[in-house]
Amino acid sequence: MGIVVLYGSSRRHGNSDKLADLLVEGLDADRIYLSDYNLQPITDYRHTEPRAYPNDDYHELIDRVLEQDTIVFATPIYWYGISGVMKTFIDRWSQSLREDRDHFLSKMSAKKAYVIAVGDDEPHLKGLPLIQQFQYIFDFTHTQFDGYIIGDGNKPDSILEDTAALSRVEELRKRITHNG
Amino acid sequence: MGIVVLYGSSRRHGNSDKLADLLVEGLDADRIYLSDYNLQPITDYRHTEPRAYPNDDYHELIDRVLEQDTIVFATPIYWYGISGVMKTFIDRWSQSLREDRDHFLSKMSAKKAYVIAVGDDEPHLKGLPLIQQFQYIFDFTHTQFDGYIIGDGNKPDSILEDTAALSRVEELRKRITHNG
Amino acid sequence: MGIVVLYGSSRRHGNSDKLADLLVEGLDADRIYLSDYNLQPITDYRHTEPRAYPNDDYHELIDRVLEQDTIVFATPIYWYGISGVMKTFIDRWSQSLREDRDHFLSKMSAKKAYVIAVGDDEPHLKGLPLIQQFQYIFDFTHTQFDGYIIGDGNKPDSILEDTAALSRVEELRKRITHNG
Amino acid sequence: MGIVVLYGSSRRHGNSDKLADLLVEGLDADRIYLSDYNLQPITDYRHTEPRAYPNDDYHELIDRVLEQDTIVFATPIYWYGISGVMKTFIDRWSQSLREDRDHFLSKMSAKKAYVIAVGDDEPHLKGLPLIQQFQYIFDFTHTQFDGYIIGDGNKPDSILEDTAALSRVEELRKRITHNG
Repeated sequence: MGIVVLYGSSRRHGNSDKLADLLVEGLDADRIYLSDYNLQPITDYRHTEPRAYPNDDYHELIDRVLEQDTIVFATPIYWYGISGVMKTFIDRWSQSLREDRDHFLSKMSAKKAYVIAVGDDEPHLKGLPLIQQFQYIFDFTHTQFDGYIIGDGNKPDSILEDTAALSRVEELRKRITHNG
Repeated sequence: MGIVVLYGSSRRHGNSDKLADLLVEGLDADRIYLSDYNLQPITDYRHTEPRAYPNDDYHELIDRVLEQDTIVFATPIYWYGISGVMKTFIDRWSQSLREDRDHFLSKMSAKKAYVIAVGDDEPHLKGLPLIQQFQYIFDFTHTQFDGYIIGDGNKPDSILEDTAALSRVEELRKRITHNG
Repeated sequence: MGIVVLYGSSRRHGNSDKLADLLVEGLDADRIYLSDYNLQPITDYRHTEPRAYPNDDYHELIDRVLEQDTIVFATPIYWYGISGVMKTFIDRWSQSLREDRDHFLSKMSAKKAYVIAVGDDEPHLKGLPLIQQFQYIFDFTHTQFDGYIIGDGNKPDSILEDTAALSRVEELRKRITHNG
Repeated sequence: MGIVVLYGSSRRHGNSDKLADLLVEGLDADRIYLSDYNLQPITDYRHTEPRAYPNDDYHELIDRVLEQDTIVFATPIYWYGISGVMKTFIDRWSQSLREDRDHFLSKMSAKKAYVIAVGDDEPHLKGLPLIQQFQYIFDFTHTQFDGYIIGDGNKPDSILEDTAALSRVEELRKRITHNG
């Protein structure tokens, strides 16, 4: 039981990646760069017989997520929200609800979650709906929302000058390692 | 100059589709069912030389959007946010900003936008971050956010019993046709 | 058991008053114009022995509220929030929690609440934090948040031209009278 | 030109007071404990001839605020919002708009503002509407919203164990003194 990091950026080593890497530095973590995988949009079979769900990497990824007890969602703020690839992954949880609701929810409800969101247009204000959305998501899955970091950065590595975000990383590291 | 409707659902004739259809009933509208198209996630080239952007249907779709002066965004509320496919489409606007920023912004700033969002878990409360996100999006593009409808529905056609949403459709129809 | 309307405006017959009056027209309701009463700010005795709470009209008013099973909060949007006088009244609920927590919460948890908020600066967007605040308030007291109306108006009676708000009044009237 | 701190708590030396004191420690600041003053609710004369506004301490206080170029709003989170006494003070700004709109707005638009909000029920989530409300307030007055601190505390001095808030204080101190 350990940590899984979901990286939502399309750019490797971007600012949200960097903050997440600092958060789990030296810890054992399964790192999933979502844009490296084939993830198709959800197909809604809530009201019809499910035909085939997309034959892609979703099952592999969700299984890796469900194995750990701590999830870090690291996303750049794209258009004031979760990145498309991360949203697509979360949307697919509806498939898990359909395929094995009890298993999925019992697993998710035993986890802690952290959110890292980095943007460059007043993220401490315009990133708040993103945080509220995650709150509703975790309320639904009964996952403990244990903390979030909003970072302010645009150019490569500019996040390393956001001392408030770096302090916050240290705070959350204490929580993660204390819990671990 | 007219109306373009962006349908974000993965299910044809779902509740968000139905509300959008009622909104533009009898009007000339270009209907884009996003899940019918090949739309890849954005690749972030803000800080590197852009190599090839995905060779998919994005350019065709954004050109159709930019031709009209009214955009209707009709999305089911998936996990308390915009559907993945619609978010992926919006994320790609960053490509348009990179390819021809002035053209894109001058076009977008001359438009009116409407949002239709349908969910089944207290959408009038838990859908508010989604509305706020669209507000920030339209603030950025200087698009006039002329109104939104939150619908409450889950089962097929249950939206037709949401009389508040139907009244709101009538309100917004007046604005659209008065402007048209 | 019936309805109590809390009017938060400082101006009698203003737009929020009018919407509330339409909502309960013809129904038996206890109307409380908060600005007619002496309501002092809360004094925080959570961590000290309570000395005297303000000797004002709070007890009379909260007793009248607790007697009914439906509460309508009708407030103008002042500076993007609940009016000061209504906020002062709600703050005093902390006194009730201190004086008789179980009684207060058991009463509040058996009620339905409706919120009417009227503003003139994009209230459908900039009034959303106010709605979210009420959501958290009602979550705390386990009161059922049964619906809200955001109205757009400034000049006297301009709310009567906000046909969307008037339609919404009709919707909520059905819920109130159906429940009654 | 310097700093004014508006304390919104009803309890002296509470947690929001303490954070504010740390923020301006060693700096020259005008400290206004709002609950020490006589502040009556706004009377809305937007649509009628203004009769007498309340004869209380408002003018003295707003004059002291307008003299400084940095405002710190330090409020406990009461019922998921600004404290009643602080909200009552802000509501009275409508009086200043009526009495001398240009003077008030030109002064406010030249200022920087900081918000400190301390609560004990998931303040990093349930305090977000309060932050958004302040954002809209400062957008209206064109005041620069230069940062906020959300603190988690209930019992006396428990804020001193909220190391994330204390780090944030240090961040904002740098901005304030750098600007000063």
